Order: sequence, then structure tokens, then C-alpha cells
Amino acid sequence: MGDYRKLWENLNMDLEKHDLLCEALPEAFGSIYLTQENRPENMNYFNFALAEVHGARIQELNEAKEKGKKVVGTFCVFVPDEVILASGAIGVGLCSGSQFWIEDGEKVLPRNLCPLIKAFVGAKVSRTCPYFQSCDMIVGETTCDGKKKAYEIVEEYMPVHVMELPQMKREKNYEQWKDEIKLFINKMEELTGNKVTVENLKKAIDLCNRKRKALKRLYDLRKNTPSPISGLDALLVSQIAFLDDIERFIENTNKLCDELEERVKSLEPNGKKRIMVTGTPMAIPNWKLHSIVESLDAEIVVEETCTGTRYFEGEVSTEGDTIDDLLNNLADRYMNINCACFTPNEGRTEDIIRYAEEYNVDGVIYYNLSFCHTYAIEYKKVEKALKERNIPILNIETDYSEEDAGQIKTRVEAFLEMIGSGKELHTVS
Amino acid sequence: MGDYRKLWENLNMDLEKHDLLCEALPEAFGSIYLTQENRPENMNYFNFALAEVHGARIQELNEAKEKGKKVVGTFCVFVPDEVILASGAIGVGLCSGSQFWIEDGEKVLPRNLCPLIKAFVGAKVSRTCPYFQSCDMIVGETTCDGKKKAYEIVEEYMPVHVMELPQMKREKNYEQWKDEIKLFINKMEELTGNKVTVENLKKAIDLCNRKRKALKRLYDLRKNTPSPISGLDALLVSQIAFLDDIERFIENTNKLCDELEERVKSLEPNGKKRIMVTGTPMAIPNWKLHSIVESLDAEIVVEETCTGTRYFEGEVSTEGDTIDDLLNNLADRYMNINCACFTPNEGRTEDIIRYAEEYNVDGVIYYNLSFCHTYAIEYKKVEKALKERNIPILNIETDYSEEDAGQIKTRVEAFLEMIGSGKELHTVS
Repeated sequence: MGDYRKLWENLNMDLEKHDLLCEALPEAFGSIYLTQENRPENMNYFNFALAEVHGARIQELNEAKEKGKKVVGTFCVFVPDEVILASGAIGVGLCSGSQFWIEDGEKVLPRNLCPLIKAFVGAKVSRTCPYFQSCDMIVGETTCDGKKKAYEIVEEYMPVHVMELPQMKREKNYEQWKDEIKLFINKMEELTGNKVTVENLKKAIDLCNRKRKALKRLYDLRKNTPSPISGLDALLVSQIAFLDDIERFIENTNKLCDELEERVKSLEPNGKKRIMVTGTPMAIPNWKLHSIVESLDAEIVVEETCTGTRYFEGEVSTEGDTIDDLLNNLADRYMNINCACFTPNEGRTEDIIRYAEEYNVDGVIYYNLSFCHTYAIEYKKVEKALKERNIPILNIETDYSEEDAGQIKTRVEAFLEMIGSGKELHTVS
Repeated sequence: MGDYRKLWENLNMDLEKHDLLCEALPEAFGSIYLTQENRPENMNYFNFALAEVHGARIQELNEAKEKGKKVVGTFCVFVPDEVILASGAIGVGLCSGSQFWIEDGEKVLPRNLCPLIKAFVGAKVSRTCPYFQSCDMIVGETTCDGKKKAYEIVEEYMPVHVMELPQMKREKNYEQWKDEIKLFINKMEELTGNKVTVENLKKAIDLCNRKRKALKRLYDLRKNTPSPISGLDALLVSQIAFLDDIERFIENTNKLCDELEERVKSLEPNGKKRIMVTGTPMAIPNWKLHSIVESLDAEIVVEETCTGTRYFEGEVSTEGDTIDDLLNNLADRYMNINCACFTPNEGRTEDIIRYAEEYNVDGVIYYNLSFCHTYAIEYKKVEKALKERNIPILNIETDYSEEDAGQIKTRVEAFLEMIGSGKELHTVS
């Protein structure tokens, strides 16, 4: 990484503290990522993007800001990037994946809270996330109790606009969400001074759809046995998707897919168990579960998470001639995400069952960040549906600390052995 | 308590397990309640109501059911009792206050969840709550992630109707809540076969307002120094309010208040610290915090909780000539409850500050059931506002077990001492 101290200083960051983070990240990345064998060559771009995640990309954002662009931070796949782009602003995902921020988060939040939220708030409070520091506004949502109330804390530090996501999927809820998107357009117009028009909104929808297509293409390639890319590498691509320049990301993801398409022609069976991860998101540098699973005789071939399929599945239609038409299209696409925040949320179980077949998985790991009530409670329903179909499932609740890594490894090992022996057929309840 | 085994058997209860509960309750009540000195004579009614909480009242409900009445269980102060009553049904609060039900709750729910929700679901799963067993339907709501998702589990056992409470208080949210009440009316009409009319809805509103008035009268009497009634006794009255026949409850609460009015004329100063409790609800038989605080040199004089002021403050207007008018009135009153489920929720802090003055409190105990995210996160804001006003505050997070009772007692003792010494003036941050 280059020298960005001046840039960080201008962003009012805590340089000394941030240095500690900058030291730890390359080491973790090196030992987890760069030790993988036979990685696709085109992962180099994503290695570089990760290495420069607090550097070159931040410089880019701030150069754009100097030219009058606004930068808006988001924290959830329900916030429609299309609106941000149509208003001429740049959207970025926010830091929330490291144990590094937990301590500062716990200064203003209860400890009994999901690490994602504590890290997110801790990153702001400690001024060690250059994305946060580059943002003109944060867009929150009401997808869980923890985030909903945490935005009230963040608002003491910077402007926040909260979108109210409905908690059900009845017809009127689609209308409510449409209205929230309309309010969000107003807010973005106010922030940027630009008008959201049919033309620029369609262009933004098209751009986001192309990003979704690129990710879908990558995931479709993982359906091959064996997968031409490790779960770790695919996860990194997904994580970078939340931060990178969109056109450049699409280009590089497609290049990677070109290479993977060649790879699948000559791949030999590797005998590894094919695993689906379902549950809560994994933000940079949360590679904990993937690195454990792939250190064993298994590969993760799909993530039914917000940093996985929920992020890219389903495109927004560009049909229609008015903003209202496009609002309907946006509401439709986003309300169809099957998040555990909805009640009921049968669609998610259906997705998991469909993916299990499409990706030909041997077992499912239900990954739950500690204290995330919605996904934790939904586990029983998913477990029941999977057991009825003889699909083995393992429930892992964890946070960002490394304390339980050994225990998780032992449990995953036992799970893989059980899958191997076909014993799961007898554990169906 | 009389012999109700036949009744319980007809309700498909687990008799053996329920016996264990029936044994434990009178013992706890005896040691906590009946050992209090100089109790108001008219508490006898509430002692009786508590003793017969699984007996006479259940018999009453089931006699009403035999005559064609429907019984509907609720679990939150946002569900409008007025609609239940107008449709000719009976509304009852549901069992959720005992450690007894936690183990069964944890069979179908994660352990990292608020004890209220685990107890509530455990009571149903174990068939040891005669209220649950008497209900034709449960009315849920989306006030927190835990309950929202737990109703999906309960629905596997019995019919559930969920009302979607908005998460903000903008004008459109009032409209949304009004529409939810309308849907609830439809549901109740369907369940009972009765029509909700302007006439019977006005009558129901009036009845609920009279109940609120009676509770308000009781609470107003607690504003005296010293209070003519212990916090424990006032809590019991509030708890019985959720279960009892409404007219009889009003009559007996008013009788109690008549007696308390006489009492205040001759009360001598007792030097006890006056404490407000704010936070999460306390269902029968959750008397844990009150019994600890009042075993020390203090009295609890007000509860800013859902089993306290949030339950009875604010009446519903009976103005208007149409169902639509009354729906507006209902939406207005219920949306004005300042629950931590809303974002923002500044009104609650304002309430606490106002009550601190009105009830002349020496200190505030922030009572939070473990893993309740919304109230836990809101603590920091409340703490800040109170410290700015030199109102001492103590944060207690706990569940239903007795394991931490000693530790809580020590902390409350230290808090009371600090109040006494005026040291809190120096801890303002």
C-alpha cells in the first residue's frame, strides 16, 4: 500500500490506532489467502483491491469528492444503490468485519449485540474506517433491532437517513417500501443537488444489473464439481463488490469468470465435500468460517447470505416510462430478498433447498453471528425443512474473536465425517 | 386454590408439570408479598386474584367460552383491547414471567434470547399455561425481532394473528397502524362472528379508559411521600390488570385507592429512597427487582414500563361518529406509547424526566431483560439525559434466574448509598 497518511489525516482519522489495523490486515490476508494453492490468476486484481482497500480506493473517493461528488455509506442490501448512483453520488459499504472495532463499539453499545453492529459503530467512534470518514451521509434501515437503534448512536457523529423496511410482504408493504424509496430519492436529490430522472435512474439500474450478472456468473461457475474457485476467493470478490468502482469491478469479475470457464474444462475431481453457508453476512476481513472449512476436506460453493446470493439474485426491470414505474420495479426486486427480518419468511427456506440442489451441496452450515435474533430463531424452521429432505445441517453461532476457532474446526470436522459416512440419514428427526 | 384438575385436563394441560408450578408459586408469593408489613386491606382482593390466577379466573374464562365467547391472548400493550372487547371476545395477557418455562422455551428458541419470550413460548410448548390453553387465537405484533420471529414458532401450535407495528412515528406510520387495527377488526369479526360497530367500539373504549383511569389513580397516589403502597403491591395490581375481568378489576382498584387516600392523611415520613424503574415489562411472577429494592431502604414509586405507565397513560378519545373516526383515535393513542421499538424514541426520555419530577424520585433503575436489544441500546441516551439533570441512574440487566440476585442486591445497595451521599453529582459525565 502506498503512503496515504496525509489523506487519512485530512479525513480526521485516528492515525495511530489505524496503523495497528493496517499492520494486522496484510498478515491475516497473507496467511489465509496467499497460502492457497493454484489460485486463479485474475484474483490478482482482488488481492490488489484488498491491499488498497484503505488506500487507493479511498484516494479515488476523495478525488471524486473534490470534484463535487457525494459519498454515501450503506450497511444493508436493502438500500437501493440505484438511487445513489442516479443522483450522481457514490455508494460504499461500511467497515464492520473486524474484531479490531469491537472494543470501541462496546463503549457506546451493549456487549450482548451482534459483532457486525458493534464493529460498525466502533469503526465510526474510533475514526479508523476511512470509508466512514469519507461519507457525507449514512443510509440506515430498520432490518433488525440492533441496527435500527444503533443508527441513533451513529447520528450523534454524522448525518444519517433511515429507511423503514416493512416487516411483512403483503401487497401494502410493497407500496410502503416504494414510498420509502421515493423519500430516499428526495433525500439524495437534496444532498447532491442533482435530479433523479427516468434516464439516469434507468442507467443506474442497468449498471447495478450488470454487476449482479457478473456475480451471478461467478456463482454459476461454482456449480461445477469441483468448483473452479475456492469459497475464500469467491467471498473476497463479493466483499470487494461493496466497495469498488462498479464498472471496474464488473470488468475484473468477468475477466476472472473467463479464466474460470477455461479452468472447468480441465478440472479433476478432488473429492471435497461441497458446502453451502447460509445465514448472516461476512464483511471484510471476516474470513473466519471459510478459512476453517477450507482448511479441511471441503469447499464452500455458495453463500445464501447478504454478502452472497441475497446481494445479486433478482434484477430490477427497466420497463416503464416514469419514475413511478421504476419505483415499482425497484420495490419489487428489493422486497423479494428473503431476509429473516420478514415474518413469515418461507422464501428463504425455499431458496436454501433450491440452492442445495443447484449447487449440488453435501451439507449446509448455518452461520449465525452471535445475538442476531432473527436468523437465530429462523434456524429451527430451516433445520426442519432440510432434515425432511435428508440435507445435513450444522448450526454455528460465533463472533469475530478467534477464541472459538478450534472448537468450530472440531465441529466442522465431525460434520464432514458424518456427511461422508451417510450417518445423517439416521439423524432425521 | 380450589380443585381445577378436571378443568386443566380438558384444556389439554400437562398436569404433572403444571403441579410443580402450582407448588412453587404460593411459596414465592408468601415469602415476598405476605411478609410485607402494614399492607392495605384491599390488597386482599389482589392476593386472591393471584392465588386463583390459574384457577377461578380460568374457570370463568371457560364458562364464558361454553356460552360461545372467544378468548384471545395478547402479549404486548400495542394490541388494542378495545377491538377484542367490541367484538364480544375476552382478551388476556399471556404467561411469560417465570423461570419455570425457560427450559421448554429453549427447546425451540435460541438461548441468547430475552427470558420473556423464552418463557412465553415455553409456556405454550409445555402446555402449562391455562391462559394459553384457553385461547382461541393469539395476537402477535412486530415490536421486536425476538417476538416477531417467535410467533412463527407459536403458529405451529395454534392460530396467530400478527399486527405489524410501524417502526417510526411519521404521519404515514399513524395511517399504517390505523390500517393494521382495521385488519384486526376484520380478523376479530371473522373469529367471533360478531360485528364491530360504532356503538360497541365506543363502549369498549370507554371501559378500557376507565381501567386506565383506575390505574392512573393508583399511580397518582404513589406520588405522595411516602407512598401509601409498596412498589411490590402496585406491581401486583398492574400484573393482575392484564388477566382479570375488567369491571371487577376497576371496582377493586378503586376500592384500594379509596383506602390509600385515607392512608396518605396519616402517613409519617419513612426516609426511604424513592426509586423509578424504567425499561422492560415484569409479568407474573417476576417480582425479582422489586423484592430486592424494597428489602433495602427504598421504595419503588413508579414503573415506566409496559406493565407500568405505558399500559395506562393516555386515553382513547370517543369523539366521532364513524368506525373510521374511532380508528383514528385508537391509532393516535397507541402510536403515542413511547416504546424503544420506535426510532427515534425521544418521547421516552422525556417521559422519564417528567416522571422523575412528578413522582419526586431520588434515583432511576434501568431494568433490562437480557438480550432485549432495543431497550439495551437506548440506555446510553437515557443515561446521558438523566446525568445532565443530576438524576442518578443504575443499569441492571438480568433474567428470571435467582443466580444474580445477590449481586444485584449489592449493586442496588451501593446505588442507594451513593444517592444518600449526593456523590452522583460528581459522576456526571
